[in-house]
Amino acid sequence: MTFIEKLEQSWERSNSLVCVGLDPDLGRLPAHLSRDAAGVLAFHRAIIDATRDLVCAYKPQIAYFAAAGLEDVLLATIAHIREHAPHVPIILDAKRGDIGSTAEQYALEAFTRYGADAVTVNPYMGSDTLEPFLRYRDRGVVVLCRTSNPGAGDFQDLEINGRPLYELVAERAATQWNAAGNCLLVVGATWPQQLARVRAIVGDMPLLVPGVGAQGGDVEQLVRAGRTARGTGLLVNSSRAILYASRGSDFASAARAATIELQQLINRYRQD
Amino acid sequence: MTFIEKLEQSWERSNSLVCVGLDPDLGRLPAHLSRDAAGVLAFHRAIIDATRDLVCAYKPQIAYFAAAGLEDVLLATIAHIREHAPHVPIILDAKRGDIGSTAEQYALEAFTRYGADAVTVNPYMGSDTLEPFLRYRDRGVVVLCRTSNPGAGDFQDLEINGRPLYELVAERAATQWNAAGNCLLVVGATWPQQLARVRAIVGDMPLLVPGVGAQGGDVEQLVRAGRTARGTGLLVNSSRAILYASRGSDFASAARAATIELQQLINRYRQD
Repeated sequence: MTFIEKLEQSWERSNSLVCVGLDPDLGRLPAHLSRDAAGVLAFHRAIIDATRDLVCAYKPQIAYFAAAGLEDVLLATIAHIREHAPHVPIILDAKRGDIGSTAEQYALEAFTRYGADAVTVNPYMGSDTLEPFLRYRDRGVVVLCRTSNPGAGDFQDLEINGRPLYELVAERAATQWNAAGNCLLVVGATWPQQLARVRAIVGDMPLLVPGVGAQGGDVEQLVRAGRTARGTGLLVNSSRAILYASRGSDFASAARAATIELQQLINRYRQD
Repeated sequence: MTFIEKLEQSWERSNSLVCVGLDPDLGRLPAHLSRDAAGVLAFHRAIIDATRDLVCAYKPQIAYFAAAGLEDVLLATIAHIREHAPHVPIILDAKRGDIGSTAEQYALEAFTRYGADAVTVNPYMGSDTLEPFLRYRDRGVVVLCRTSNPGAGDFQDLEINGRPLYELVAERAATQWNAAGNCLLVVGATWPQQLARVRAIVGDMPLLVPGVGAQGGDVEQLVRAGRTARGTGLLVNSSRAILYASRGSDFASAARAATIELQQLINRYRQD
């Protein structure tokens, strides 16, 4: 089964466009968990068990694992998802990008070492640097387009013959990178107008949308701007607002409640 | 001592602009070494011992370590450089880039976990995503500008009001990101005209120049295009052409010979 097929089944099965980001910040773990590998893994297992029927995808952010030397915890977290939520695709958020021979190594890291279903990548270096990822036709390649951060426009909004750079990235995705149907784009929830522009360019291509929750994106606006005609096409990521909904021993049920709240808020605007 | 001070002393001490890239490809190790962590570490130690008086920097490429789960070998390789070549700065080639809170984690990975003197980063997401790295004022932050790969121009050459994107990146580096004097740029050896344009924009800012050797960049052209008035300002990286100069038991002496050859070729054009 390809990543896209798995994602479509996951949207259907969960009735949810919520993607939960796993960003293990040692300093923000629930107070009763140890600040070490065992604590992080216990935290992730509980979060996954509490949300696995409510999400269309999980998105571990590799930076948090790498900063703390927790590669084994990332592997164990992925193994837990495979065992207890086998239908939920895993997007490794790594934003890799390098010359072809090095990109091949990064593709091995994401798809072979960690066995991710999809990986995020950066387009700045050009099409040939995305090719080693896209060659894995059964995996998803999620290319940065218009990101959620305050400075996203510094380069992404620069106009080339009257069109912003991020639109040219979206066009390349639609006309070139998606030949095998395995390309997705990142568009921040904080920019609903740009999200609508990208949706108009890429047809039904799935869009990974970070920036709700801690970053403040408006759910109604983003869903109206980004949904497809079928009311899907979006992976709305929330990390901190779900993971750290409570720092008490009720953190897992608080995460579940926060996920349901986001799921229902999104679903309100998928079809109307 | 800041990264830039260390680099300037290293240029002087070694009389060399050569940076050796450490890209441990298990399939290309010398035939007598084991295809595992011990083999890679023995390989790196021998390469370092054979070249440490001839180089201005080492540049481990983290993708190769990450693909093979060799984080401990990267740490041990860096420890070997610190012990046996303490004056040679280490640039972690990671090309990271993410929103601020995640970029902080990547900065921890590069500067704290691995203790690198500098790290390569990607500017696509905007200035606020570089800030968490630049805040380490004693470390170097090496921003992708005009890269060495065939598709580099796909986005980097797009013209905004008549000026290519990579020149706007160079301008931001010169006018904004280099406030603490710790910003560098990556410009590929394969594009000497673009290298000359960047040099004109950034003054004496050091430029990391990959693309000689396996990628085919012309040394005379790149040195003439990229040198500063003092005949420095460049870190000319070679990885595969040095590491894999021989696959026999003479690999270390072959690497030394290849490094000397590149050093001398570069030095021929530094001042004339």
